[in-house]
Order: sequence, then structure tokens, then C-alpha cells
Amino acid sequence: MSFITCAETWITKKEQSDDGWAEIKPFLFLKLTTSDNLEGWGEAFTLPAREKGIVEIIHDLMTTVSSLENLSPEIFHTKANQIADGHRGIDFSAATSAIEMSLWDIKAKREDKPLSHLLSKNPKKKIPIYANTWSEKSPDSETLSNRALELLDQGYGGIKIYPLQNRTIDQAVACISLLRNNIGLETPLMLDLACPKDPNIALTLAPLIKEFKPYWFEEPIDGESTRILASIRKKTGLKIVTGEKQFGIQHFVETLASDSADIFNPDIAGVGSILDMIKISEISEKNNVMISPHCWNSMSVAASAMLHFCAANSNTELAEIYPEYISNGLKYSDINFVIGNGCAELKDRPGLGINIDVKSLTKLSTDYKKTTLR
Amino acid sequence: MSFITCAETWITKKEQSDDGWAEIKPFLFLKLTTSDNLEGWGEAFTLPAREKGIVEIIHDLMTTVSSLENLSPEIFHTKANQIADGHRGIDFSAATSAIEMSLWDIKAKREDKPLSHLLSKNPKKKIPIYANTWSEKSPDSETLSNRALELLDQGYGGIKIYPLQNRTIDQAVACISLLRNNIGLETPLMLDLACPKDPNIALTLAPLIKEFKPYWFEEPIDGESTRILASIRKKTGLKIVTGEKQFGIQHFVETLASDSADIFNPDIAGVGSILDMIKISEISEKNNVMISPHCWNSMSVAASAMLHFCAANSNTELAEIYPEYISNGLKYSDINFVIGNGCAELKDRPGLGINIDVKSLTKLSTDYKKTTLR
Repeated sequence: MSFITCAETWITKKEQSDDGWAEIKPFLFLKLTTSDNLEGWGEAFTLPAREKGIVEIIHDLMTTVSSLENLSPEIFHTKANQIADGHRGIDFSAATSAIEMSLWDIKAKREDKPLSHLLSKNPKKKIPIYANTWSEKSPDSETLSNRALELLDQGYGGIKIYPLQNRTIDQAVACISLLRNNIGLETPLMLDLACPKDPNIALTLAPLIKEFKPYWFEEPIDGESTRILASIRKKTGLKIVTGEKQFGIQHFVETLASDSADIFNPDIAGVGSILDMIKISEISEKNNVMISPHCWNSMSVAASAMLHFCAANSNTELAEIYPEYISNGLKYSDINFVIGNGCAELKDRPGLGINIDVKSLTKLSTDYKKTTLR
Repeated sequence: MSFITCAETWITKKEQSDDGWAEIKPFLFLKLTTSDNLEGWGEAFTLPAREKGIVEIIHDLMTTVSSLENLSPEIFHTKANQIADGHRGIDFSAATSAIEMSLWDIKAKREDKPLSHLLSKNPKKKIPIYANTWSEKSPDSETLSNRALELLDQGYGGIKIYPLQNRTIDQAVACISLLRNNIGLETPLMLDLACPKDPNIALTLAPLIKEFKPYWFEEPIDGESTRILASIRKKTGLKIVTGEKQFGIQHFVETLASDSADIFNPDIAGVGSILDMIKISEISEKNNVMISPHCWNSMSVAASAMLHFCAANSNTELAEIYPEYISNGLKYSDINFVIGNGCAELKDRPGLGINIDVKSLTKLSTDYKKTTLR
């Protein structure tokens, strides 16, 4: 019989990436320790002004479930849904994501298997990945194009850009044209519109860039506006990606019924749990919708969980990597994957396969909290 | 020029209601103080394991906006939406609800007007109300019926029951029959199904109880399952109520488009803001959908905010009151309304009109947090 004896959380400092490309947001890590001395790591999706809130929810949830013996991801998932009683939100689901991820890490370590081998009999060796090029510095088109070429050279299998971040529609078209010219027509080029309020922006942009063959058209409108999303999908004929800000099976069921998406990109650390990711993938597959997980998180714990999920799942598209987050993550953790030929390959390690140097992590954190549970 | 100088929060102890009817959940109160010594009170909707999380979000949000001068509900609403960037959840929206409610209290006090007079030129004097009879003790039908008669005698204008809480479908029919027999056919009798997982439960129950003329059929399925909700509405012909667990204008827009509701019951302390309540009411009115605010909160701050909103709004139905919460609230606050003839009448006081005895509140609280902002 095993119990969770201790829950510890860290919120890392905001800092510039080593390569100067972008600011790295605070990450929220969770370590659970069991009575038989196993350690499980998890990570919660974070947002400004909400990190400490998520920490409190994690510790309160762990206190609530601390009496449960042999706490598995499945038991926790059921219990968390009972506690929530249908009251949803990305703060709560980020908290449950972190806990459930830690429990998967513990479960897989206990069985001495990589997580992907627990989730599937025949996990993929290589997981297609793309690089996100977001920067709050609003890079000009030439800078962006150079970055894209560098990243492709490093082995990423596709490039995502934010054409409307600092550009008019015409400027966005010119930017996309430049990138296509430089990276070639074969490389997946993802366009993230980041939810303009006016659906006409996506509708105006789409026909102007169709010749540049965008790989997908992400968040052309808020993900909850499924009817507008469906009409944009129909009118543009582009592959619509949505779901990164969403949580709860019901939302994805409704979105599937509205026929408004080609690809869902729930965030592995925000959607609520890996079990929810699996369920969303199952219902999506029946509707010919793929999963391409969002991962605006550290490239250590959460990215590893995402890659294990993708390795174990036949219905997944390219997974998201933030390249500039990797070297900063190395200051307190290792990285569990090797990038090359458009793919990430997971190392053969039990659990999530992430080793964290707790001393370094604590030094780089603004917030540490420990709850002794038993 | 005025600034918010201080944010204080309290989480009250869980306790039994004075009349023994039900357990009273912890409430979360917020007091904002301005540089010109005005005090605004707000309240956040609370849920198990999430109260302290909401507290942290409130304090972090207030720190984020602390440099804004003359912070109005409108400015805060815009800023909070920018910070959230479309990432929604009831924890975050409970936090913004509490802050915005406090800012309305401050604004109305500054103008020396009751909040309802700030929101409308001709606020209603009397607001129709109904009593919620929820109890975790699962009262039997006779106990419930006696309670209903007492509450009607006290002046409540309608009674809400949970027929499926501890009953099979047949027992629920018998319970509803007994209540109708005892309270008469004219008194509004609301049935809250509390989101059964299987839509067939609502579909089986509805024809069996139609003769007892339920006033409404609340949450016959999860509020995010708008397509199933629409089909239940069409098949049963009953007035469908939904929205208490929801937040964000987009959700209500989609629900209206799906033609699945007769009445929305967003929670005044959970939906995100009074401005959102007003917006939801405006778009609902165009679709012949009414607002009957949910208020599973204290009967001091949040109930007062709800009644001001209802007084100022022509598109509102009966408002929700938890009768057994009133006397416990009197231990640390006054109550700003008088009940009689099926209505609540607000007292003529500036702002929300609530006076809180901070010393008593602190004594009855498990958690107090103060952030000095300037």
C-alpha cells in the first residue's frame, strides 16, 4: 500500500531566453512523493496573475485526496471530477493536469516503463514536432524568416508564426510570402491568428494567403465561438486549429458536433489530465479530427508528457516545441528528447523520464510551497 | 485622483445553519480601500479546494492593476479581459466578480446612490425572489414540503427543490406531487435536476410531472452540452434553466444560438462581473431569454449585488435566496433587503448597502489576507 506523503510546488522566475529571442514565462512544477519513496513530477499551465492561485488549488486538492491509498491517475481523475461537480476553468484544470501528470510519472516509474509504454503497446519512436516562433519583441519579417531557417536547420519539422501580431493584413500577406519563399513550399508553415475579435480578419486574410499553402489556420476566432469557427472553416477551406484555451470533454464534444475544427490543440498541462487528452483524441478520431498538442510550458516536464502522449497515440499531428525554452530549462532539469529530421525522439527512461535538480530549481524560483500530507 | 490602497480577503468557516437545515459553505469576501478612504465590498463564488486559489488570483490581479488611477468597474473589466486573453474559468471569473463588485460598491458610494440607481434610472422597488431548499441532509419529501410551506409563509415567492437528489424517478414524481398538493398549483415550483449525466433521466421525468406544472426545469444536463439541452427543451416543452456554472459572453452567445434555454441563471459572484451580467441580459432579451440569477453565496454582499442588478434590469426573473444563510450572515454583517409578498425590497442605502463588522468576520474566518497596494 502506498500513499502520497508530500506535495511540493515551484514557480520559476520570468526571464529572458538565453538566445535573447523571447521572454520565458514562469513555469509551475509539482513534485509528489510516495510513502515508498517514488517521486512524480507534474507541471501546470500558467497565466499572468494566476500562478499562485493554481498552486493553492493543487495543495488543497492534494490535501483533499491525501487519505486515498494507491492513488492512481484514474482514481484521481474520478475524484477531481466529483470535487469540481461540473464547475470548470483553466485554473482548476491546470491544477488537476499537474497532479495527474505526477501520478502518471509515479505509476510508470513503479512499473519501470517509459510513460508512452504504459499508454500504448507500440508507442512511436519518433514524434513529428514544429517550432513556435512567438516573441513579445514582435520580430520583423526578415528576423522571423531567419529564425525559421535556423530552426529548420536544427531539425524542427515545421514553423508556426503569428502573422497578425504586429502587421496589417497586407503586411501579414507579405510576411507569409517571404517565409514561404525562404523555407520552401514543402515545410509545414502554421499560421496562428491568436483570436482576433472580428471574424472578418480571418476571412479577409485567408484568400490572400491560400497560394502560400498554410499548413493550418489556428484560432481565427475565440475557441468558444464554435458557430463562427465553423463558418470560417467552411468559407476559407483552410485547416482550422482550436482548443488550446479549452478544457472539459463537453466543450470538445460540442465543437466536434459543430464541424468547426480539423485539429484540436489542447494543452497537455492545461486541459485537465492526460486521460482527458486520450478521451478527446478518441472522440476526435471518430470525427476525423486530429490532435496536435499545444505546449506553452517548460520543455522539461510538460513537453515530455506531451511527447509520451503523442508517442502512444495514433491520432496525433505535429507537437509544439518552444525552442528557446530548452536551454533555460537545462539550468534545473534535463531534457528527455532529441530533435532531428522533423521529429523528437524520447529517451528510454522510466516515467516521464525527467530529472530535476531541486536545488537549482529552488534557486530559480520565486515561490516554493510544501505540504506534508501524512 | 483616487487609488486602491489595500485589498483584504476573508474566507469564512464552514458551519451548520442556525436552523439546522443545511451546512453553510465557506464564503469569500473582499474589501478594497481607496486613497480617499472609501471601502468597497465584493464576494467571490466559492467551491471546495478552490477558495484559497481564488484569494491568490484576487490579490495578484489587484497588484497588477494597482497603478491604475480612478479604477472603475469598466476599466477593471477591460483590463481583466486583457490579462486573461481568452483563458477562462470559474476560479478566475469568481476573482474578477469579487473585484468588480467592490468597485461598483465604491463607485456608488462615491455618488451616494444605491447601486441599482447607478445601473438604472428607474430601478424596481420590489424584486421577485424564490427560496432554494438544498440540503446535504437529503430531506425526505414530507420534511421538504413542510419547509416549503414555512418559507412561503415567510414571504418567498417560489420554491426550488432537487427531486432527484435522494430519489428514483418514481419517488421524484411522488415528491413533486406531494409538494404541489401542499403548496398549491399557483406557487412557482422550480425543479433543479443538478446535471444528471444521462439525458434520458430528464426525458423520462418530464412527461410524468408535467401535470404538476413545474415553473422551470433547471440543469437537466450539463450546461456546456448545448445540443442535448436544446433537444431536451424541444422534447419536454418545459422552461429550461442553465448557466449557473458558466462564464464568458461567448458561452451564452452560443447557448442562445442553439435555442436551448428559456432562462439563464449565471451566478452574480461567479460569472465574471456585473458588466457581464448586464451584457448577457442584453443579448438574452433579444432572444426572449430571461435572467434569473443564481446566488449560491452569502446573503449579505453577493445577494445584495444580485438584487441591485435585478432591480435595475427589466429582463430578470425570480432571484435566488438561500433562506438558512441569512441568520448566519447576521453574525458579521447586516442584510440589505426585507422579504415579503414574494419579493425582496432593498433598503435605501448607498453602494451595495452592506455593513460588515470586520472584527466578527475575522473571528468567523479561517483565512485572512491583506495586500497593501500603495
